[in-house]
Amino acid sequence: MKAATYTAANQLKLIDQAKPTIIDSTDAIVRILKTTICGTDLHILGGDVPETKPGTILGHEGIGIVEEVGSAVSNFKVGDKVIISCVTACNTCYYCKRQLPSHCLNGGWILGHLINGTQAEYVRIPQADGSLYHAPETVSDDALVMLSDIFPTSYEIGVQSSNVKPGDTVCIIGAGPVGLAALLTVQFYSPSKIIVVDLSESRLAAAKKLGATDTICSSDIEKIQKEINHVTSGLGVDIAMECVGYPETFDVAQKIISIGGHVANVGVHGKPVLFALQNLWIKNITLSTGLVNANTTEMLLSVLETGKIDATKLITHHFHLSDIDQAYHVFKNAEANQALKVIIENDISPA
Amino acid sequence: MKAATYTAANQLKLIDQAKPTIIDSTDAIVRILKTTICGTDLHILGGDVPETKPGTILGHEGIGIVEEVGSAVSNFKVGDKVIISCVTACNTCYYCKRQLPSHCLNGGWILGHLINGTQAEYVRIPQADGSLYHAPETVSDDALVMLSDIFPTSYEIGVQSSNVKPGDTVCIIGAGPVGLAALLTVQFYSPSKIIVVDLSESRLAAAKKLGATDTICSSDIEKIQKEINHVTSGLGVDIAMECVGYPETFDVAQKIISIGGHVANVGVHGKPVLFALQNLWIKNITLSTGLVNANTTEMLLSVLETGKIDATKLITHHFHLSDIDQAYHVFKNAEANQALKVIIENDISPA
Amino acid sequence: MKAATYTAANQLKLIDQAKPTIIDSTDAIVRILKTTICGTDLHILGGDVPETKPGTILGHEGIGIVEEVGSAVSNFKVGDKVIISCVTACNTCYYCKRQLPSHCLNGGWILGHLINGTQAEYVRIPQADGSLYHAPETVSDDALVMLSDIFPTSYEIGVQSSNVKPGDTVCIIGAGPVGLAALLTVQFYSPSKIIVVDLSESRLAAAKKLGATDTICSSDIEKIQKEINHVTSGLGVDIAMECVGYPETFDVAQKIISIGGHVANVGVHGKPVLFALQNLWIKNITLSTGLVNANTTEMLLSVLETGKIDATKLITHHFHLSDIDQAYHVFKNAEANQALKVIIENDISPA
Amino acid sequence: MKAATYTAANQLKLIDQAKPTIIDSTDAIVRILKTTICGTDLHILGGDVPETKPGTILGHEGIGIVEEVGSAVSNFKVGDKVIISCVTACNTCYYCKRQLPSHCLNGGWILGHLINGTQAEYVRIPQADGSLYHAPETVSDDALVMLSDIFPTSYEIGVQSSNVKPGDTVCIIGAGPVGLAALLTVQFYSPSKIIVVDLSESRLAAAKKLGATDTICSSDIEKIQKEINHVTSGLGVDIAMECVGYPETFDVAQKIISIGGHVANVGVHGKPVLFALQNLWIKNITLSTGLVNANTTEMLLSVLETGKIDATKLITHHFHLSDIDQAYHVFKNAEANQALKVIIENDISPA
Repeated sequence: MKAATYTAANQLKLIDQAKPTIIDSTDAIVRILKTTICGTDLHILGGDVPETKPGTILGHEGIGIVEEVGSAVSNFKVGDKVIISCVTACNTCYYCKRQLPSHCLNGGWILGHLINGTQAEYVRIPQADGSLYHAPETVSDDALVMLSDIFPTSYEIGVQSSNVKPGDTVCIIGAGPVGLAALLTVQFYSPSKIIVVDLSESRLAAAKKLGATDTICSSDIEKIQKEINHVTSGLGVDIAMECVGYPETFDVAQKIISIGGHVANVGVHGKPVLFALQNLWIKNITLSTGLVNANTTEMLLSVLETGKIDATKLITHHFHLSDIDQAYHVFKNAEANQALKVIIENDISPA
Repeated sequence: MKAATYTAANQLKLIDQAKPTIIDSTDAIVRILKTTICGTDLHILGGDVPETKPGTILGHEGIGIVEEVGSAVSNFKVGDKVIISCVTACNTCYYCKRQLPSHCLNGGWILGHLINGTQAEYVRIPQADGSLYHAPETVSDDALVMLSDIFPTSYEIGVQSSNVKPGDTVCIIGAGPVGLAALLTVQFYSPSKIIVVDLSESRLAAAKKLGATDTICSSDIEKIQKEINHVTSGLGVDIAMECVGYPETFDVAQKIISIGGHVANVGVHGKPVLFALQNLWIKNITLSTGLVNANTTEMLLSVLETGKIDATKLITHHFHLSDIDQAYHVFKNAEANQALKVIIENDISPA
Repeated sequence: MKAATYTAANQLKLIDQAKPTIIDSTDAIVRILKTTICGTDLHILGGDVPETKPGTILGHEGIGIVEEVGSAVSNFKVGDKVIISCVTACNTCYYCKRQLPSHCLNGGWILGHLINGTQAEYVRIPQADGSLYHAPETVSDDALVMLSDIFPTSYEIGVQSSNVKPGDTVCIIGAGPVGLAALLTVQFYSPSKIIVVDLSESRLAAAKKLGATDTICSSDIEKIQKEINHVTSGLGVDIAMECVGYPETFDVAQKIISIGGHVANVGVHGKPVLFALQNLWIKNITLSTGLVNANTTEMLLSVLETGKIDATKLITHHFHLSDIDQAYHVFKNAEANQALKVIIENDISPA
Repeated sequence: MKAATYTAANQLKLIDQAKPTIIDSTDAIVRILKTTICGTDLHILGGDVPETKPGTILGHEGIGIVEEVGSAVSNFKVGDKVIISCVTACNTCYYCKRQLPSHCLNGGWILGHLINGTQAEYVRIPQADGSLYHAPETVSDDALVMLSDIFPTSYEIGVQSSNVKPGDTVCIIGAGPVGLAALLTVQFYSPSKIIVVDLSESRLAAAKKLGATDTICSSDIEKIQKEINHVTSGLGVDIAMECVGYPETFDVAQKIISIGGHVANVGVHGKPVLFALQNLWIKNITLSTGLVNANTTEMLLSVLETGKIDATKLITHHFHLSDIDQAYHVFKNAEANQALKVIIENDISPA
């Protein structure tokens, strides 16, 4: 089969690889219908993720059709249309039992990372019962792809961790795909203000369309604080979601948070940050971090089915698997291409 | 009346001041029976708290007898024996309504800070209905003094914020009075391990007597991590309580916390800390900070009444108000004197 | 002043009564702008509430202008426009400290019940700091009147107690004003299905307009169960809100609740119900009851200000205070008049 | 092998049955070391549980040694010493994903109910990864048997559902094994009062030894209310745990509950109860029911390992499997024999 393979730093090739087969009785083989690219794929491609070995097929998102199941798979059968979760969950290990499948000792984030991923015609899904979800007919394929990673990540790590209450004031720092998915899903709880901070006017325009009540186009911390104070009557925001991953963006979060507020760190950080405990120790704040558990997929499906939010609004481009290099090119140069999420359809072995 | 007055940096004098009188209809005047000294008093005395003006009577803890009440005080009457809370709460402002009286717009921590405090024969208590608690006969006076600040602080900011569950593993960093009070109150929830870290063998010996299951006498982070891993089967602790307030002690907390764990910052910090988000973003941790709300005083009273914990075990020395300078001397040189909390009895205007 | 006075069973008269004056230093006198009628007023009028003595002015809802404040009132001043809460809260008693001002030992529901109420030109509000809320300019007067009782009641006792999560399935039993207010406020949390059960097609038509996804016009429990099973794939509903107060309507709730579901009892009951513990003991359900605490008024104001929900949709009729007998007549015969909430404007002493 | 088999109503026989073998790849075969009898076994034996067919081996509790595992079992291997949970959990079905394995679509309570159970030399455990727990060396065998059902049931359905807080007042109605296990586990949270109600003085004496602060030996509701009011200053209890399962005992719970309190129904009911909503609608109470999920087994193990509570205090008698009829006789006549839990050791195929 054809598979988008990480062959060396900065090198992705659509090459022939062996079609996967059942290894463990809990495996399923899924023919991919659609997949997408995540910022993490770019990190791997950039050579920043040494545990991903050259030869690995990338991708941890997608939907498909079950082609084969191991003898111990009980929830899925051949022909089922499924959403592939970015997190593989055995459901019985120490962390899974504590509702932390993100850290599953027999899984976690392994697809397109430690084992072959979804940017191919077929993929082997270990622990299929804990890692696949039935795809309803009532939600579009493109929307379903958003449930593999970006929606659960934004919702669980950004929104759920923040315990958002109706009437809360929220600031989302970063209007990339993750920040915008947080913007959509935070609306499940009816906050009164959702302020989005970014440096790109076009992304902020997108944020406005998706429900932001206010936007701030700046990296000047004093200017941001001033605007936040203006919107929140000087209180600061109840909830700040850091959706970027730099010390500077974390700094925004910690400087605009109200007394009693919550900082949800969603961004992936590569460096430590200076945490202003000399100011914050007294402010009764809480803070959370996390890798997605992907255990809200069915809840998110239920909401998508109502039509309350339209997940496809995060999708800006469509490609075929045979042209996946173009998809990567566009996604890598997101600002120039006004790209958010790109959908890649398997045109090599279609339905 | 005689009052321990901050007259200049590093200068505390027991001088004559006017006996306080009712100013607002919500005030009460309390004759002090017993008071104590807090680490914060030393900070003020050291000149580190510029908002405290010379001439201020220190102290925000104590018990006493109500001598006079304003016309709008409804819960207390002359002759009532009361615990004075370190936090003054109006109960109706923006923060009080959000259960954050620590940040009360008409109070908060003001006693011995912005207004005259409790290290005197008498004190004026604003917002008496929200700031005093009835003292039961069934708990000793010394124990009651511990409910003004140190027990609520340790319990609310250390224990309650951590959502301790039976069977959890807990590490308390710092075995000073606050850390030891956290050690006592965390036992309300039956953790399986309570590891205390400090540099003083005598304080760790005290910790052992008060319920620590393990102690670590070191500031060597690698050694501490190794011991923690030994006790927790390599998982790290479910809960780390920072009860000191330095970057180095915060660093211990963030390096020993388990996946899914909680860091409760109880220490008062004067500098930012390096927060290792490059490691922690993925670990699904939570963190909390805070100033005491003192809204658990009655719950703590209920537990003290059962005899389950003995708050007087934190008390190492007794002085008279007329000798308060000695009390400060001992408390300031805590290590040399093996001092924890010191009780100061009002011998000038006794019962 | 003119005041709607309960003079004897089934007798309400708009008669002259003395204009109220400050009695306690925590009182405020409010000139009523608008008020409304509650089902409870009809109960009193019917003679079912013996603790309400003839001569009492009815009404516990309304908005107005502060005319005078006692010396201990700190949050309000003459001229302030305010929402009057149906619950009077001292904020310092045993129950207030436990966040149960509904049972305030110095207040609770007393307006138009134990003391004179709001269906008059003026009203005395005890514990003003805990019982009034500042009225913003950005929300219409009619909408503000809905914040005195019906919105907090529906939200706190129906929605908040149910811990509604996005994607949940909800059934509201009873489409009277309280049920419809629950229908509006449950949407703060994005449930996937909201099924409303009632016997009136016109009320169900209103429910459909206000966001019900499904309606059932029946009192036949088997038919209702069948429809609920159809909508919920046989699971039953995650949340059932009983908004009527009869054994029959409670029975609907207990028969349609899913395993792990929650029954919120909002209705006021006059008789015991048969609770089917022989079926429910095994179903891991929870149940809640309650009188409104009215401590979410500011949260609800924040949401109203966003325009997300339109509280005025519950208002069907407008009257003048001078014609309050007509208002009662229409509200009493709600079905015939297709009446929900009626607004009564003070035309006797207008702004 | 020998197995205690339900052969007809009121007939239990220790007869030869085929030794179980692996049927599904997720099965394990366990050689029983020790088992016990539950009240439910008596119900089955009495013929009250029609879905249990004659020929079924009884018992859903016990510890043992893994003899064989199916190919899909990953957490257990031959020779492992294990605790058998009374609940079989697939971990991937609709209810398991909602943390309700009690209602697992591929399991739940099936052992000794729908499939052969543990009162035999060997047992087949389906879904072994979700239904067995590793037995530590540090806890005695007898104590471990208490973790199969009675401790998780009392803790989860009685204590955890009640959200017990330090200082709470608790009443446990019924001092049988379940009530006494609730008495032990509620102490994890340091309530200030634990009042136990029963009709047996000997059981109440046991309760006193296990930590009850007060006992009431009566079924006279007025007398019970009077005593409860005496102990709780007239407030009623914060938490009432119904551990019997009759309308009369439920009535005690609903009559002694405080405003804002919680009723945890632990008892198995065969009839509806009269629920006094005419009094309770206004009292802001919550209520919970449930079948054990057995998902706190590891937490309970952690606490048992600390020695904080001694689970063996519930054990009054020891028998051999070869004499299981005597064990049933003693357990059935519990009051006459002063019996609580009885341990049955497998003497037929010992270690």
